[in-house]
Amino acid sequence: MFPDTTIEQIDLSMAKAWKAFQLYSKKSLKERAAFMKAIAVELEAAGDELIKIAMEETNLPEARLRNERARTIFQLNSYADACERGDWLEARIDEAIPDKNPPKPDIRKMMVPLGPVVVFGAANFPFAYSTAGGDTATALAAGCPVIVKAHPAHARTSERVAQAILKAVTDSYMPDGVFTHIHGASFETGKALVEHKYTKAVGFTGSFTGGKQLFDWAQQRKEPIPVFAEMSSVNPVFLLPGKMKAAASEIAKQYAASISLGVGQFCTNPGLIIGIDNDDLKVFLDSLAEAVKPLAAGTMLHTGIFKNYVEKRANVLAQADVESFAVAEASPQLNQGVTTIAITTADNFMGNPLLHQEVFGPFSLVIKCRDLSEMLELTEYLEGQLTATFMATEEDLKNNEALIDAVKMLCGRFIINGVPTGVEVCLSMQHGGPFPATTDSRFGSVGADAIKRFVRPLSFQNWPDEFLPAELQRANPSGIWRTVNDELRK
Amino acid sequence: MFPDTTIEQIDLSMAKAWKAFQLYSKKSLKERAAFMKAIAVELEAAGDELIKIAMEETNLPEARLRNERARTIFQLNSYADACERGDWLEARIDEAIPDKNPPKPDIRKMMVPLGPVVVFGAANFPFAYSTAGGDTATALAAGCPVIVKAHPAHARTSERVAQAILKAVTDSYMPDGVFTHIHGASFETGKALVEHKYTKAVGFTGSFTGGKQLFDWAQQRKEPIPVFAEMSSVNPVFLLPGKMKAAASEIAKQYAASISLGVGQFCTNPGLIIGIDNDDLKVFLDSLAEAVKPLAAGTMLHTGIFKNYVEKRANVLAQADVESFAVAEASPQLNQGVTTIAITTADNFMGNPLLHQEVFGPFSLVIKCRDLSEMLELTEYLEGQLTATFMATEEDLKNNEALIDAVKMLCGRFIINGVPTGVEVCLSMQHGGPFPATTDSRFGSVGADAIKRFVRPLSFQNWPDEFLPAELQRANPSGIWRTVNDELRK
Repeated sequence: MFPDTTIEQIDLSMAKAWKAFQLYSKKSLKERAAFMKAIAVELEAAGDELIKIAMEETNLPEARLRNERARTIFQLNSYADACERGDWLEARIDEAIPDKNPPKPDIRKMMVPLGPVVVFGAANFPFAYSTAGGDTATALAAGCPVIVKAHPAHARTSERVAQAILKAVTDSYMPDGVFTHIHGASFETGKALVEHKYTKAVGFTGSFTGGKQLFDWAQQRKEPIPVFAEMSSVNPVFLLPGKMKAAASEIAKQYAASISLGVGQFCTNPGLIIGIDNDDLKVFLDSLAEAVKPLAAGTMLHTGIFKNYVEKRANVLAQADVESFAVAEASPQLNQGVTTIAITTADNFMGNPLLHQEVFGPFSLVIKCRDLSEMLELTEYLEGQLTATFMATEEDLKNNEALIDAVKMLCGRFIINGVPTGVEVCLSMQHGGPFPATTDSRFGSVGADAIKRFVRPLSFQNWPDEFLPAELQRANPSGIWRTVNDELRK
Repeated sequence: MFPDTTIEQIDLSMAKAWKAFQLYSKKSLKERAAFMKAIAVELEAAGDELIKIAMEETNLPEARLRNERARTIFQLNSYADACERGDWLEARIDEAIPDKNPPKPDIRKMMVPLGPVVVFGAANFPFAYSTAGGDTATALAAGCPVIVKAHPAHARTSERVAQAILKAVTDSYMPDGVFTHIHGASFETGKALVEHKYTKAVGFTGSFTGGKQLFDWAQQRKEPIPVFAEMSSVNPVFLLPGKMKAAASEIAKQYAASISLGVGQFCTNPGLIIGIDNDDLKVFLDSLAEAVKPLAAGTMLHTGIFKNYVEKRANVLAQADVESFAVAEASPQLNQGVTTIAITTADNFMGNPLLHQEVFGPFSLVIKCRDLSEMLELTEYLEGQLTATFMATEEDLKNNEALIDAVKMLCGRFIINGVPTGVEVCLSMQHGGPFPATTDSRFGSVGADAIKRFVRPLSFQNWPDEFLPAELQRANPSGIWRTVNDELRK
């Protein structure tokens, strides 16, 4: 529908973004926050028309899209507040000690923006992780211009959101080039964006293959740049014996809902359920099968994702000693995903790396362990994850310290007695995790700490007060928290 | 002198470090801090013997080595205090809101250690950036075991420091494997360490070639890991016209001392001095030549560094339109570096990338610009730097905003009216900078914020209070600063 932006156009856009960087990075926290809030207002103002376009393009139901837009607006507003609060600047001041030998100069440090950030829109979140989504909002808060490459699966939605952003740019008197919207279905567009000398960081949410490719291009540049790719996770759930004895059937119902939520198209979908092979697991499995049976089939985001789901699920089911255990009885229409639960043994799982891969969609693999010590052994075969979950009593937690320790090392968020789907947008959220969940476990993409991905520290030594950024000046006109001579103060 | 540690031994050591990680990462902040302080005590207790060994190996004068050990002890103690203060944990708490729809769970986040960290000892800092240096201290504070590869140029010093650390390990009842000392002059040792599956991060201070090689190995792993390599910087100094009119001669004297300090073997050595071609620059140059003339030659760290200095200096001097302008008149002994100042035009510099490279040693290249606008143009040809310096009056600063903006983007520390040599160990220090100064501009290697290189965030969702790490428990028994419901509290 939209032709790929040409390499020449990309070059012009990046030059404009670079120029905009000089101006935008000097906007005050207040001005940046007001700009972000103006984008939120425009998103709201895009009204039903925007929801209609998204429904046509994505197969996502209306309620979900309305919720997702509301979440996107919440993100913009709450990250704007965090931007203004300024904690992320990590302002540090060490005052001069002239009579020290040698004299200690006055040194002040704060975070400064990296430069233009390229954001790749996500297929599964047309609003919240696309054009005006979390990566864009946090990069703008940091003081970085943003270049968004629309996801081809919802290019019109992206185009409409871009219009809303560009209106906010104009109305807020922000520099031309602070936001750029680009189309591109080809490999070359992504490569040109990542390799461009003015690109200083990359945000991406999607497949392992896509994210790893961007990462490799970025690391092979003459000047390597950070890539924040959120890629693949099977979000293991550990069913501990005490809890299973108490609530096997309830857990099964809770998980049938979590596995099938949004046709399983969430990064935090519970793709692996690990239990002890005993009578309680049988109760769990029976309840799970019963809960899965009546689940409706759901239309997946686009044909590519549907085909992938069918193929990857088939691959898993074709492995030795893997059994298709429960399948929803719905008759699927075109591009509809059917909730499917497979089952295998821990032995088999540990010996077959294909079973460790994510099957993106409403699918989960149950693993039967002989005992808790095999469950612990199994953790050595798991890669980095966005989330891990324990269904456990306090007694279970007391008795399984080694398992807790092992699982902590694997994940970015550790849930007890809940489901991994449902990602709260708040400061304490870590949406990220060890590789291959993301390319950089030290940062996350949800919550205001995600701003920190796009900044670096700069020290100012011996600067006259009036030339310092406001946030570091003696009088603290921005009223932010700062660490002065090793002590936090406001 | 010491044979290379074999690949088999490295494998055993890494397995031990991995096991130690499970135990060490659970030590309280207080216990880690006490352990670090015990190392400091042992370093002091190593007494004159340690200084003697270092003098024999490094050619560094006694006073410098005593100072450097004192600095290393200060680092260990001050990073231990910072470890205990716990600001670096970035504890965030969002309390549950059960009546929200859907209910908001209790989520708590803090930094957790990455895992075993491999540290490569630096040639130019046998204490402060080697075995018990800044990388080791910050990794231990973070809760990571450390594997140090001794720099072959001071392997005996490193061995003696390792003994001191290992005594502290035993006396503090720290787990076996929390610290490992390894020798290796070969390429293969470094490669095996960086590529080992249990290595989770790498610290390095040294040449661009060395650091970039480690970075590439690390990024090409199946699971890429962060590499903090502090590599090369020419630390440009901009002489602005107002300041030059007022103090050309004083600046020259200040810089002759800075260029030759420590035989120029500091990462922050001012290797590039950029001025406007006018009468004040002539005064500056005359004074510089006069100040350089009587400077004694100094023995360099080791033959390799000396040979490199001679070769790289010769390369620069062999370029068209580069003139050797001032050379100290000392008669050098074996391996002694002679302070040398060369001069060229901005035009020539911009057209010849060889002139942009670091010449490690007591060398500086003066660049004559036609005017301020050529000085601004020149910044586009500079790569990332650890530091940049302005010699400037307030008037100069007012009149050169564009130049200030351009230079900010290049460096990690921006000094006004000072010299870049002399790196204060304090929280506000940024010792790092855009590539190729380091491989990751988002972090630095001096000051307690360097701890952040070796940690990642982990969210705890819906955990019973008593199972949470102390730092996240309701009662805040560690008494650290935490952000609770978006508000900083103690």
